[in-house]
Amino acid sequence: MITWVNGQPTTTISVADRGLAYGDGLFETMRVQQGQPLRLELHLARLQLGCQRLKINLDFAQVSQEIHSFCAQAVNAVCKLIVTRGVGQRGYGIPEKVQPQRILQLSSMPHWPTENTQGVRLYNCQTPLAIQPLLAGIKHLNRLEQVLARAEWQDASYAEGLMLDTEGHITDCVFSNIFFVRDGRLLTPSLANCGVAGVMRAWIMQQAQQLGIDCQETQIKVTQLAGMDEVFTSNSLYGIWPVVSYQNYRWSVGSIARRLQQRLTD
Amino acid sequence: MITWVNGQPTTTISVADRGLAYGDGLFETMRVQQGQPLRLELHLARLQLGCQRLKINLDFAQVSQEIHSFCAQAVNAVCKLIVTRGVGQRGYGIPEKVQPQRILQLSSMPHWPTENTQGVRLYNCQTPLAIQPLLAGIKHLNRLEQVLARAEWQDASYAEGLMLDTEGHITDCVFSNIFFVRDGRLLTPSLANCGVAGVMRAWIMQQAQQLGIDCQETQIKVTQLAGMDEVFTSNSLYGIWPVVSYQNYRWSVGSIARRLQQRLTD
Repeated sequence: MITWVNGQPTTTISVADRGLAYGDGLFETMRVQQGQPLRLELHLARLQLGCQRLKINLDFAQVSQEIHSFCAQAVNAVCKLIVTRGVGQRGYGIPEKVQPQRILQLSSMPHWPTENTQGVRLYNCQTPLAIQPLLAGIKHLNRLEQVLARAEWQDASYAEGLMLDTEGHITDCVFSNIFFVRDGRLLTPSLANCGVAGVMRAWIMQQAQQLGIDCQETQIKVTQLAGMDEVFTSNSLYGIWPVVSYQNYRWSVGSIARRLQQRLTD
Repeated sequence: MITWVNGQPTTTISVADRGLAYGDGLFETMRVQQGQPLRLELHLARLQLGCQRLKINLDFAQVSQEIHSFCAQAVNAVCKLIVTRGVGQRGYGIPEKVQPQRILQLSSMPHWPTENTQGVRLYNCQTPLAIQPLLAGIKHLNRLEQVLARAEWQDASYAEGLMLDTEGHITDCVFSNIFFVRDGRLLTPSLANCGVAGVMRAWIMQQAQQLGIDCQETQIKVTQLAGMDEVFTSNSLYGIWPVVSYQNYRWSVGSIARRLQQRLTD
């Protein structure tokens, strides 16, 4: 794994970094092809929202330039960026002169089965997502809920796991967002209370608009699943996986998932 | 700051540590006097509960011995232990052969005003604590709520800030627990849904039992504050601070806070 910290090749950070102490930071996971980080502007937009919420003063021009330099030699890879608030003394209070740290890690693409693009089964995760509007949507470093949820199943026949919030609303999957099609319209869970607003989710919403497909963010309960014509998940690395099974629900791969997959390949 | 990682003097950890990536770990903050970590058995008991919840396989005999060696030369200091799940590849899934990391940091005692033992004012934090029973009580590394809450006030006349959960129940303070006295009985918020179950809180509950003072963990709303005779906060480092003011509520320093402070000094 190739690693830079603040633009320099190194594989370690200070144990006094607040990213370690409190998960006080953010991250982005980007697909890289032929030296280019894909959908970088969407990744940076989400990072910016996260920095505003957490009040981290990051130099975005510098980060953007650093990502381009870092990815330049990669053909097909994953670039992960971690931004922490920086090194602090003990205690939650934010030091006055704290310097955000930029950590870049390049790794190979995960080996997901290619059949996943033809349909996946979703595990029924029991770990609920807590309701916390102040942290919802952004990709911060407090990810114990996802760690616990991913540890719930080992059966590789489940490609992903569906997560509900503590009030029973469908929110997202462990490392993906989720979309539904009902009567030709796209629906995706509102992430005002919890969940991560993925870059592929944002891209799909943009595409839907261009294609003239209505797309709504709304609250969705499991009991509403029976009325859905199509279900698919999304993630920056793998793109789009149609969902064919969750608990006793079954779906066929639908035309909207296929159209979006095609647009992504083009 | 003196630092050990896995028993060796060093100041850095791998950028691939899951403690940084996901806040996948736990911590303890211990007061050290004359080479002894105070109330170590209570700290280790809470750490053990955290490790069980997060399924981290830690060698407790080794950790305990390491803490003793690390603290041996310190006269009056703070020993912070961070335990992470260890180094991982990208992705939430827990690697099979992951090795927990033990990070020890020794720092000087914070300079809190000595008048705090005579009574403090509490800030009214607006950052709510999310309800997540799976993570409640344990001292894990996902601490963005505390970071946001502590950043709400700069006015040094507030020694601490009171935090409510998203349903409006009083839970704890940013870096302390809270106790109330009503009709000679101790009350402290139930931490079944959120909050950190402090070691000083556990010690106070033990002392109350020895003193024959009834102590109940229960749900407490702000509207119930008018009926409280005494309020005090607790923390492993500073001990006990009586609360004299919160919003429009005023209290005098009470006899139970004084008795417990005295026992702590003895």
